[in-house]
Amino acid sequence: MAINSTGLQPSQGAGEENNRVQGAPALDAMQALASTMLRCVECLALYPAIEAGQSAFPMPRYRCDCGGVLDVEILFKHPDAQKRQTQDAFFFDADINALPESGAVWRQLFDERISSPPIWATSTDKHLLDASGVWRYRELVLPVPNHYVISRPEGNTALYPVGMENCGIGRIGHRQIGVYAGLDRFFLKHEGENPTGSFKDRGMTVGVTMANVMGAKAVACASTGNTSASLASYAAQAGMRGIVFLPVGNVAAGKLAQTLAYGATTVQIEGDFDDAMHLVENVCNELGIYLLNSLNPFRIEGQKGIGFEILQQLDWQAPDWLILPAGNLGNTSAIGKAFRQAYQLGLISHIPRIASIQAEGANPFYRSFNGKFTERFLVQAETVATAIKIGNPVSYTRARRVIEESDGIVESVSDTEILAAKAVIDRSGIGCEPASAASLAGARKLVERGIIRHDDRVVGVLTGTLLKDSKTGMPQGGSGSVIKPTIEAVRSVLAQ
Amino acid sequence: MAINSTGLQPSQGAGEENNRVQGAPALDAMQALASTMLRCVECLALYPAIEAGQSAFPMPRYRCDCGGVLDVEILFKHPDAQKRQTQDAFFFDADINALPESGAVWRQLFDERISSPPIWATSTDKHLLDASGVWRYRELVLPVPNHYVISRPEGNTALYPVGMENCGIGRIGHRQIGVYAGLDRFFLKHEGENPTGSFKDRGMTVGVTMANVMGAKAVACASTGNTSASLASYAAQAGMRGIVFLPVGNVAAGKLAQTLAYGATTVQIEGDFDDAMHLVENVCNELGIYLLNSLNPFRIEGQKGIGFEILQQLDWQAPDWLILPAGNLGNTSAIGKAFRQAYQLGLISHIPRIASIQAEGANPFYRSFNGKFTERFLVQAETVATAIKIGNPVSYTRARRVIEESDGIVESVSDTEILAAKAVIDRSGIGCEPASAASLAGARKLVERGIIRHDDRVVGVLTGTLLKDSKTGMPQGGSGSVIKPTIEAVRSVLAQ
Repeated sequence: MAINSTGLQPSQGAGEENNRVQGAPALDAMQALASTMLRCVECLALYPAIEAGQSAFPMPRYRCDCGGVLDVEILFKHPDAQKRQTQDAFFFDADINALPESGAVWRQLFDERISSPPIWATSTDKHLLDASGVWRYRELVLPVPNHYVISRPEGNTALYPVGMENCGIGRIGHRQIGVYAGLDRFFLKHEGENPTGSFKDRGMTVGVTMANVMGAKAVACASTGNTSASLASYAAQAGMRGIVFLPVGNVAAGKLAQTLAYGATTVQIEGDFDDAMHLVENVCNELGIYLLNSLNPFRIEGQKGIGFEILQQLDWQAPDWLILPAGNLGNTSAIGKAFRQAYQLGLISHIPRIASIQAEGANPFYRSFNGKFTERFLVQAETVATAIKIGNPVSYTRARRVIEESDGIVESVSDTEILAAKAVIDRSGIGCEPASAASLAGARKLVERGIIRHDDRVVGVLTGTLLKDSKTGMPQGGSGSVIKPTIEAVRSVLAQ
Repeated sequence: MAINSTGLQPSQGAGEENNRVQGAPALDAMQALASTMLRCVECLALYPAIEAGQSAFPMPRYRCDCGGVLDVEILFKHPDAQKRQTQDAFFFDADINALPESGAVWRQLFDERISSPPIWATSTDKHLLDASGVWRYRELVLPVPNHYVISRPEGNTALYPVGMENCGIGRIGHRQIGVYAGLDRFFLKHEGENPTGSFKDRGMTVGVTMANVMGAKAVACASTGNTSASLASYAAQAGMRGIVFLPVGNVAAGKLAQTLAYGATTVQIEGDFDDAMHLVENVCNELGIYLLNSLNPFRIEGQKGIGFEILQQLDWQAPDWLILPAGNLGNTSAIGKAFRQAYQLGLISHIPRIASIQAEGANPFYRSFNGKFTERFLVQAETVATAIKIGNPVSYTRARRVIEESDGIVESVSDTEILAAKAVIDRSGIGCEPASAASLAGARKLVERGIIRHDDRVVGVLTGTLLKDSKTGMPQGGSGSVIKPTIEAVRSVLAQ
């Protein structure tokens, strides 16, 4: 049931109130989110962020009635407005765009927040939010009252200078990454340094916060990897139940170890993946379970924090290129959206070009790009880089807009190229999970092809920590030589 | 060859200059370290931080001639002295102690540094150092010229409020930790959030920096765990070779996976652990390999950063208790030393009491404590908490001083208690490796015994990330129920 931008209509979902949280619905949050909308990326229909269900309990919406994916649209509040406390302080994108001073005001706000000493442990919710690499940018992420926020805090990950020129003294080993890519000024943003070891925490803090606003008792997803680990951790923190729904036969306890440790429940559903998941979508509404599948539009808003934080770490001097691994295309969409909004608000003076790197065996977006996006592909995905092993990316339409708007590019790299790049990142002492290395493999390829110049300022994103996968592409046979305890023997073995 | 505090005598070590780095020795570093000494913790003999070898190349020293462990002593430079640029700006502990205003000056210095926006990626070495949770306190850690420092940066780990009163909204799941401990105001400092996933990075950044000062081409240790992973990562960054020496038959490639990924070499030495390691100590000097075994005194200086950072995150309001896992006793020594120095410098107004928690099967320090330290014990260590599975702790004497000075306590907890505490930390969504959970198990026990009061302000240290050990104490049989895709089936399985 679509609405236009001036009127809201509640959905007809049948809420099972017994399974909802007790007490009044989150009226203050609903009021704060009145200017936040969900736009269908396919038919452009508009929905409110929260729709009232029966008995005024909010009903989550994950798709447009046309079946399309939804994108969050926030009417940004000018930072000065908070000080002035006026009611007419809401601007549309176009209005903010027209304010020449607005970029400086936003930069000042975010720089003040990042300069607060991190004494949040003894301090107020405001300090907690300022210390997060997501909620520091809260006006641009989700304008919800502070007390709903579930945050570790997350983000604040390192931006390693690894180019041939910018690597600096004290990190000459990191410089090998720049040599391998052929780049003078190259940075790696390591999202594996988030609390659960992957970038997923950035989206999850916003997703679980929305679950909190909705009064959900439980949150669920279908994933055996980074998403389920992050969901389980944030759900536990919030005192919600974490549930991982999987089609029968898709559970490998080892891959779920982190998720299970955080106390999440695994439920196997009969049927194939699509059947099971579609039914779960409906079942969840009935049982007060908030779905944090990749469909969930609020997770993308949190992942925008990667983009904002990179810009702030570069002192708001936008790089020429941003390179990242591309599977479900959530990060391409999120970082691209962050850059677009940062440009619209005057935070930066140009939009970086985005290079999305797919694995050769899971490259539907690459195929579409090569055909100038006239066709959408679906492939049987196969790659060692499991975190981007996706045959039918959920965020295809959002990501396509990002590539087109940013004059971006989509590249494809083989598993061999990914593992070679991973070995370079690992041996530099930084390390990453296999999918992350697609960024470096892609950088090297695009420099070789002459698309990225050696003196461009380039940021690559690493999505997960080395510790997430201690097998794929790791050196084998580490038992080493057995030697006698003599100088000669040690010297000889080290000379090998 | 011991010296007194007024004269230095070079050692007679035979340097193999061919294997040292080419070029001049690090004269600027030697000058900067002129006021840094090594004191034997047993016989109190004093040595310079760097001793000249043949041809004026520095020769590392890991032990006193009496065989005792060495402790770093720095003559702190008053922070105002840097601004005044005077030559007479060096004070002894006693002098600084006598300056009433000195605490405020130090606090201001460290608070200014922590408030610098983290734009170190584009910035100078000074910004890099300020962004590290070790080098932010560099005057108190190692007064070496900035350009020798090898830093990721490390530290800046979260201090989670988890007590029954201080856990705050948005983290009611974390509150279960406070309930389990029986503490109202309880914090967990999560050192697993360091770059390689454990607190070892804090000591390693200082150890590898000293290797850099020494002109070493390689660094080595004997460990299959967190130490070797950290060593390998920092060595790689610095462009040094990382070597893990192990007695034959002690290599499990799985445990070394992270280390091998970072490119370190494994060498198996014939003989038992002690024989092999003692010989390696001598061999290393000949080959320009700097030893970063637990003997190395500079690693302890880096680990002091845990203590300084806790105090800063608490806005310099020292807690009543600091609880931590205790194996080799390096952290007990380091954090205790940090608190002692912070108190001497006027940074804090009292020294927190230290509670060192040992595993029942590896509790030589606990036995000594119970006998009022009249006897030193050696045990055959056995515990699931491998990171504290130590039968003969290297830092025994240093740690004894800390317990005595801080009116501290040593407690012992069973593997069952450790795993129960780990399950509580994991299920809260925070997670940790097994040894870390000794902090919570010990807190609970000491509250039950009435030694820690429920309303004391208490900080517990978690030493490693959950991802370091995905087997020990993790939930088994996570495959879960298989159900039909109906609301009734989902509701029924979730009600279990």
